[in-house]
Amino acid sequence: MNSKNSNQNSNGETSKAIYERAVGVLTGGVSRNTIFRKPYPYYASSAKGSYITDIDGIERLDFANNMASLVHGHSHPAIVSAVTEQLQKGSAYTMGTEAEVLFAEHLIKRSPRFEKIRFMNSGTEAVMTMIKASRAFTGKPKIAKAEGAYHGTYDYAEISQTANPSNWGDINKPNAVPVVQGTPQKVLDDVVIFPFNDIERTIHLLDQNASEIACVLIDPVPHRIGLFPASNEFIEAIYNWTRKNNALMVFDEVVSYRVNYAGAQCSYSVKPDLTALGKIIGGGFPVGALAGKAEIMEVLDPRGTFLKHPHSGTFSSNPVSMTAGRVAMEMFDEKAVLDLNTLAMTARKQIEEVIKIVDVPMCITGAGSMFKLHFQEKAPNKYRDAYQNKETKEIIDELLDYMFLKENIIMINTVACMLSTTLTQNNIDQLSEALLRGLKIVKPKIDRLV
Amino acid sequence: MNSKNSNQNSNGETSKAIYERAVGVLTGGVSRNTIFRKPYPYYASSAKGSYITDIDGIERLDFANNMASLVHGHSHPAIVSAVTEQLQKGSAYTMGTEAEVLFAEHLIKRSPRFEKIRFMNSGTEAVMTMIKASRAFTGKPKIAKAEGAYHGTYDYAEISQTANPSNWGDINKPNAVPVVQGTPQKVLDDVVIFPFNDIERTIHLLDQNASEIACVLIDPVPHRIGLFPASNEFIEAIYNWTRKNNALMVFDEVVSYRVNYAGAQCSYSVKPDLTALGKIIGGGFPVGALAGKAEIMEVLDPRGTFLKHPHSGTFSSNPVSMTAGRVAMEMFDEKAVLDLNTLAMTARKQIEEVIKIVDVPMCITGAGSMFKLHFQEKAPNKYRDAYQNKETKEIIDELLDYMFLKENIIMINTVACMLSTTLTQNNIDQLSEALLRGLKIVKPKIDRLV
Repeated sequence: MNSKNSNQNSNGETSKAIYERAVGVLTGGVSRNTIFRKPYPYYASSAKGSYITDIDGIERLDFANNMASLVHGHSHPAIVSAVTEQLQKGSAYTMGTEAEVLFAEHLIKRSPRFEKIRFMNSGTEAVMTMIKASRAFTGKPKIAKAEGAYHGTYDYAEISQTANPSNWGDINKPNAVPVVQGTPQKVLDDVVIFPFNDIERTIHLLDQNASEIACVLIDPVPHRIGLFPASNEFIEAIYNWTRKNNALMVFDEVVSYRVNYAGAQCSYSVKPDLTALGKIIGGGFPVGALAGKAEIMEVLDPRGTFLKHPHSGTFSSNPVSMTAGRVAMEMFDEKAVLDLNTLAMTARKQIEEVIKIVDVPMCITGAGSMFKLHFQEKAPNKYRDAYQNKETKEIIDELLDYMFLKENIIMINTVACMLSTTLTQNNIDQLSEALLRGLKIVKPKIDRLV
Repeated sequence: MNSKNSNQNSNGETSKAIYERAVGVLTGGVSRNTIFRKPYPYYASSAKGSYITDIDGIERLDFANNMASLVHGHSHPAIVSAVTEQLQKGSAYTMGTEAEVLFAEHLIKRSPRFEKIRFMNSGTEAVMTMIKASRAFTGKPKIAKAEGAYHGTYDYAEISQTANPSNWGDINKPNAVPVVQGTPQKVLDDVVIFPFNDIERTIHLLDQNASEIACVLIDPVPHRIGLFPASNEFIEAIYNWTRKNNALMVFDEVVSYRVNYAGAQCSYSVKPDLTALGKIIGGGFPVGALAGKAEIMEVLDPRGTFLKHPHSGTFSSNPVSMTAGRVAMEMFDEKAVLDLNTLAMTARKQIEEVIKIVDVPMCITGAGSMFKLHFQEKAPNKYRDAYQNKETKEIIDELLDYMFLKENIIMINTVACMLSTTLTQNNIDQLSEALLRGLKIVKPKIDRLV
């Protein structure tokens, strides 16, 4: 317990009082389920670098970084300064700004394969536009996506994200399982679900829908599946299939772009046709982007005689998000990416040591500056292998509560960490020491799982 | 020509140069089609109150207010100050903030019928969540929407937005016309298109799909249809139909909320079950919100044993948008709304005078602080009446170019104005005087239209 206020006893009194007001005006008292925790969420008062101070004055070390979106931690001086300056000049106009051009230039210089870009307001919008653009380009209606993969809240993109043993069906033909009650059957009929990293089954499923698939949607390091990278063979097999079948291979790198200087796609021998971006590229402000091959992006070009995909957005490419995003990404240069990934590698090694010391059947997966704990000895490389049952989820909640309340450490609610450049080796030591204590507490329950 | 720099001759040199860079990195050189204009868009450098200065130093009077989203003009000191303060404390956390609770409390105090709220990042996301929540609550797949109405870029919501005489079909059964090429037929099959403000035909069409309709989606003052309000009888007829058929009546007030202190819905004897919000409630920052009856909003409640509609969003309810939105809406109090609507009424009267003086077959429609010019003598009250053909659109482009380049006045690209509280009677005089000169120039072409 190394955090500054660790001696202070947080009973969350003020958070509890705010939540009591919140339930009167917000459904369930929250506006994002992510922040919900039982019996009530805690409220942030301010944050700086790697630390968030809650409304009762308790400071916590943050490894969640707003669900992986803050790669330089909180209120980074360079971003605050640039945005503060922009605010004086306005936050949105019915006109263009040089900010959107400068940012697009930076992203294309960084990832020359992008060729052309269009900005949106969220990762959800980016994935939706990517799917619509794929349909507009190919003229075909279906998409294929991996069971368990999270891609935001657009119906087609979210199918089977929460599939479980009671409804996922035969692995040779996984069911298209709705996330939201009342999802039209017609949506389910237009989504092909495949098992991530399973070449043979995936290609067989794609073949069965070959003439109708507009795009195969892939998060190369899918957090919700288990935060392990797709194999190069898997990506190559999908790429080759799409070349043969007039379909696009499209990547959702909203989360995974941080993995490498030009995204997780750097690591593969073949590249996606389109990429959806979000999270870190907003520098802490709402953002989404679609990037990819010029000939495909052209469906969005308003200069054409026949515009295939009309698209606008009141706050799209607003100069605040564009400025914050550019400043953040310029600072996240090749050296910064390397340093952060090295820090994450050290963290993973230390946590592997912790697992050995506590002697629990656990493992750790990840890529770049992200990693996740699993309550199983062997690292999963498929969704169904990584799936956590109710008993495991209860242990996770207990561990996360311990980390948050007793160690003043914030992790993502999947027991994952998404690092920021403001974190230090000392912070990593704090994390692994806290996990040592936390895992010892839940060890009897973990042992009973097996 | 009263604007400060009117003697300066803007040739848009710098804008042209930026656009030349833009086409290299952004599809069509823009990230929002709204800002596109031929031969190139102009770029904003800074803005204050009712004025935007472009990158060549030309100041223009702004009646577009970022597509109706800035109700207090640009960089309002109270908003800039509140956001600047928030920036120091961070822009997004994986925790709640009191800002979201304070803002939800304000909106519910303002519109007690809302009962419960959830925030998103854009109007598009708000409408999408509203439709998904309607399906989750009713268990039915279809939506009904008005031909020509704009509701953002979610497939179901955008169908028939751009329907034209070549594809809109029989008025008794309007076709479901895709906006984006490649929209799945299965989406079109789940959307019922009705003619706005036409009770008999609409009810007949709804009846034909009674058992399958989850919600009837209505913008009570649809800008793209022609910016005239739905009649009370129309809204009542839909409301009564939804009560009898286990369906919801849902309003898209992303644009129209500004019409009255508690939205355009104030004016009707019956109220919607759910309302989508956006634009002005963000105070100039990306925002969307879903508000409505607690029993329906409950589908989003993460506390339930069976969560019907899981929903999150990395930047949803971020404290920057929440703070800016609350400050903006608190300033847009009952007196401010009334004053702004009065100013708009004066503007409409003055422009009606201008139309008489120039003696052109034109009219003006609107509601609250919004109005729009039509190139026809009789005010439309149906989409097909308000539809503009190619010749009309060319006149519109010429008039808008004249206003922008010669009078330094920015209007919305549909020849509409959405006022802000920073505008004065003097600004309205400038607008009507400029329109007097502009309409005289295009009069010969307008006369030839009839």
